[in-house]
Amino acid sequence: MNIFKTVEIKEDILSRNNEQAKQIKADLKAKKIFFLNVMSSPGSGKTTLITNLVNRLKNDYKTGVIEADIDSDVDAHTIAEKTGVKTVQIHTAGACHLTCQMAWESLLALGLEGLDFVILENIGNLVCPAEFDTGANFNLVLLSVPEGDDKPLKYPLMFEVASAVAVTKADVAEVFDFSAEQAKRNISLRNPQAPVFITSAVNNEGIDRLEALLRASIEEVKR
Amino acid sequence: MNIFKTVEIKEDILSRNNEQAKQIKADLKAKKIFFLNVMSSPGSGKTTLITNLVNRLKNDYKTGVIEADIDSDVDAHTIAEKTGVKTVQIHTAGACHLTCQMAWESLLALGLEGLDFVILENIGNLVCPAEFDTGANFNLVLLSVPEGDDKPLKYPLMFEVASAVAVTKADVAEVFDFSAEQAKRNISLRNPQAPVFITSAVNNEGIDRLEALLRASIEEVKR
Repeated sequence: MNIFKTVEIKEDILSRNNEQAKQIKADLKAKKIFFLNVMSSPGSGKTTLITNLVNRLKNDYKTGVIEADIDSDVDAHTIAEKTGVKTVQIHTAGACHLTCQMAWESLLALGLEGLDFVILENIGNLVCPAEFDTGANFNLVLLSVPEGDDKPLKYPLMFEVASAVAVTKADVAEVFDFSAEQAKRNISLRNPQAPVFITSAVNNEGIDRLEALLRASIEEVKR
Repeated sequence: MNIFKTVEIKEDILSRNNEQAKQIKADLKAKKIFFLNVMSSPGSGKTTLITNLVNRLKNDYKTGVIEADIDSDVDAHTIAEKTGVKTVQIHTAGACHLTCQMAWESLLALGLEGLDFVILENIGNLVCPAEFDTGANFNLVLLSVPEGDDKPLKYPLMFEVASAVAVTKADVAEVFDFSAEQAKRNISLRNPQAPVFITSAVNNEGIDRLEALLRASIEEVKR
């Protein structure tokens, strides 16, 4: 197999994606829209956290949600039902990640006029989505307690591209022998700048702080 | 972006991989080696289950383990320490999956002479590894309880290529409102043939049955 040819083509796709992502960022900046990209492994709690955050922010900011999945639309239905905000579903037809072109088409499908805040729930995958800039202002990466505190060592790029990390399902840390301190150290090895939020959807631990950071970030874009 | 060109190239890579995988299967069959490929999301319990199975089988079958990771070698150290069998670590240099060429080079690094049984722990990723035939006789797919019983709906290909599915961390099913019956139904929609094992590393639930299936499969190859 000609590995080099494959790598070259991949780099070509990535560099074109990065160029397009810059244009999307400029367009969103002109429209004063804050675009949040949420990434994690499958089943880390993206949909639950997004539902919670949307319900805290939707009265102050006009919000839309993009749900990306390989197949099914269970999450889009859940979010639309539980938040009432406009939600679009995108299927990647088997692909493991979203290009910014796919993100942009979803943003257009959502309708950008009047929106302040768009959340994209990316494909559940701790590898590939990290390679593709979606055009988002902010990458929120989730690490769920049952996955283990060693994951930043094993999936470096995802934690390197994180603007912030939310450790989810913190209420079960004891059951899974998960050390928040060790997780923070491992995240810091990959990304010393990213703030880390220890959160739980069960008891709402850490969600206020995360909400405050998002409010500040949305306000920054609106200025 | 020229999507069609990308798809064509991907198909070319996949079809070459499939051709090479057939050759690997033939070589392993001639050597009477049973090659097990273990796939799942990050943190679903692959290393723990592999350690358990190796310790149950290593006295009857000469066993080797291949640990694939993007980075780090914590799992290879864990398995070597806890089982004492020969273990090799392969790093994919950022790639989200293993090609069969990489699997074959790892098999050669392990040294095939005299081996009965090789386990490959694939990259933690519920998407990409399913696309690449590693040359294995058997694909064991793990679904951990905290990920949720809806994952087979959202990550179809992984469950389609499974020879068997092990639901892991079953001891916490109640905490996560996980229905084993619903999981079985969702797996069956993707793959009616695959047997499903409900397992827990904490209380050893389901491991005897899985061990028995692997023993029968190893014996089948040795015949």
